[in-house]
Amino acid sequence: MGEKKKIIIDTDPGIDDAMAIFLALQSPELDVIGLTTIYGNVYTTLATRNALHLLEVAGRTDIPVSEGSHVTFTKGTKLRVADFVHGTDGLGNQNFPPPKSKPIELSAPEFLVQQANQYPGAVTVVALGPLTNIALAIELDPEFPKKIQQIVILGGAFAVNGNVNPAAEANIFGDPDAADMVFTSGADVLAIGLNVTHQVVLSAADREKLSQSKGKLAQYMCKILDIYYSYHLDAYGTDGVYLHDPTCLVAALDPSLLTYVEGVVRVQTAGITRGITIFDNTKKRFAEITEWTDKPSVKVAVTVDAPAVCNLLMDRLMNS
Amino acid sequence: MGEKKKIIIDTDPGIDDAMAIFLALQSPELDVIGLTTIYGNVYTTLATRNALHLLEVAGRTDIPVSEGSHVTFTKGTKLRVADFVHGTDGLGNQNFPPPKSKPIELSAPEFLVQQANQYPGAVTVVALGPLTNIALAIELDPEFPKKIQQIVILGGAFAVNGNVNPAAEANIFGDPDAADMVFTSGADVLAIGLNVTHQVVLSAADREKLSQSKGKLAQYMCKILDIYYSYHLDAYGTDGVYLHDPTCLVAALDPSLLTYVEGVVRVQTAGITRGITIFDNTKKRFAEITEWTDKPSVKVAVTVDAPAVCNLLMDRLMNS
Repeated sequence: MGEKKKIIIDTDPGIDDAMAIFLALQSPELDVIGLTTIYGNVYTTLATRNALHLLEVAGRTDIPVSEGSHVTFTKGTKLRVADFVHGTDGLGNQNFPPPKSKPIELSAPEFLVQQANQYPGAVTVVALGPLTNIALAIELDPEFPKKIQQIVILGGAFAVNGNVNPAAEANIFGDPDAADMVFTSGADVLAIGLNVTHQVVLSAADREKLSQSKGKLAQYMCKILDIYYSYHLDAYGTDGVYLHDPTCLVAALDPSLLTYVEGVVRVQTAGITRGITIFDNTKKRFAEITEWTDKPSVKVAVTVDAPAVCNLLMDRLMNS
Repeated sequence: MGEKKKIIIDTDPGIDDAMAIFLALQSPELDVIGLTTIYGNVYTTLATRNALHLLEVAGRTDIPVSEGSHVTFTKGTKLRVADFVHGTDGLGNQNFPPPKSKPIELSAPEFLVQQANQYPGAVTVVALGPLTNIALAIELDPEFPKKIQQIVILGGAFAVNGNVNPAAEANIFGDPDAADMVFTSGADVLAIGLNVTHQVVLSAADREKLSQSKGKLAQYMCKILDIYYSYHLDAYGTDGVYLHDPTCLVAALDPSLLTYVEGVVRVQTAGITRGITIFDNTKKRFAEITEWTDKPSVKVAVTVDAPAVCNLLMDRLMNS
């Protein structure tokens, strides 16, 4: 038991967040020591409510939920909330009853710093939304990047189009200043971008298989997945959904299912490509000093064993 | 003879510009009706001098040279001149004597508009430097994009790192405002980016073959290529040079040697990714209106028959 990996999931649930949280809770390799909430798929207040609700569904109200920032790191930026992807309630418009449990007193950045100090070098943060809370934790404790084991980020679109617009992926677009701060913080960062998550699709047949299972969490997911499938059919013309958040969770759970490259990533914070993530592949020695020069390197996922990620997720949802 | 394709080469010579110009002059398929000059590899004054010099070397002083802009389209941007790639004279530090010929009175934008009106629908502009002159021509005559046959642009880095920094390619970085204007002008634009030109390498063996030939222009090129090889060895660790400008010229000369995709390209004009070119592959129907929505499409080259481009260039230089 002592060898379980301690993770905090920073989340904006969100349908694929629900899958990722359930996968983590069903994984004996992981010790989920907290959820922190953030805007993104929904506003932060609703993200907190949904996080509490999902823990109740899973019977894990022992796990603390800490509410995160309601605004971007650089105040004044208008929030972009993707309710058209996940439903206005973030969970497929199912009108679930309000949770009985409550978030803890500590804010998400405070909780992140507290846990990093309590378990030095042993906490992995799986960040499934905009990176505001992580940036605020770094602001609160500049040593935070060195105190945690790894930050696994669902974010970015490396050498591919974004999903908010052709340049930017939604989580990085949600708070580009925070993202640039986290990417250049010196933490051990592993970024899982659209270039990877768009390879991992839960097909209509997979969904049918989930619905045939008696697994409690599989059954729950099937209830909320409708709107997510509709969105994908409309936006991408596919009868299948991208497993963004579960893939990111798997990167913490079983890193052997992905490969990555290492180098500096910077984020554009303004203009028409606001939120774009640019990785320096270091194939050229630039004549001039660039904005990438002498910045800390991060890891950027490039390949994924997509069937293995799908099967891992499905097995654990069906055995719940 | 009537079927020759009329081209104007907008150029900042530049060693690979010299190759492209010579290739054009040696190509019976093309009628080079003028050179227009621009800053980039050198300042505009030197670009004009070099353009005149190269025509004298080739014995083609019948071709008019028109001097272009000395400043970016949006005034006040500091020029970036790549003399460390091409030598301080732009032509391998050979201290060639000043040309005897002179540029015409018309400025480059005026000349471009004049020629487009003189040969409606029949002029192809091969743009080998920053796009300032083309943007100024559009400003001078908003119908210019529809009056020309095609603008073949050496510029951009599509889904690959740039060569000024990880985000931007040098020509687009040189005047991003002009580039964004040209890409969205409605002209038939074909962009040849680093993703294509980095596939086309003149090897050390190719250079040796050129030097063994009796071709006058092959001999000339071998004299000025030293610094260009040194730069590539230093910056990329390769004993070979990228044929940026000649590849772009070939795209006008024999389009069958390249393939392309079509879609909207926008250019970021400020910030750390200033000059980045983002192509919308239209695989997603975005929920919101984006900066790419309803803009005119352009063509972006994706594959090239690199050996064929190399051989075409070498054959025509050796048979000069």
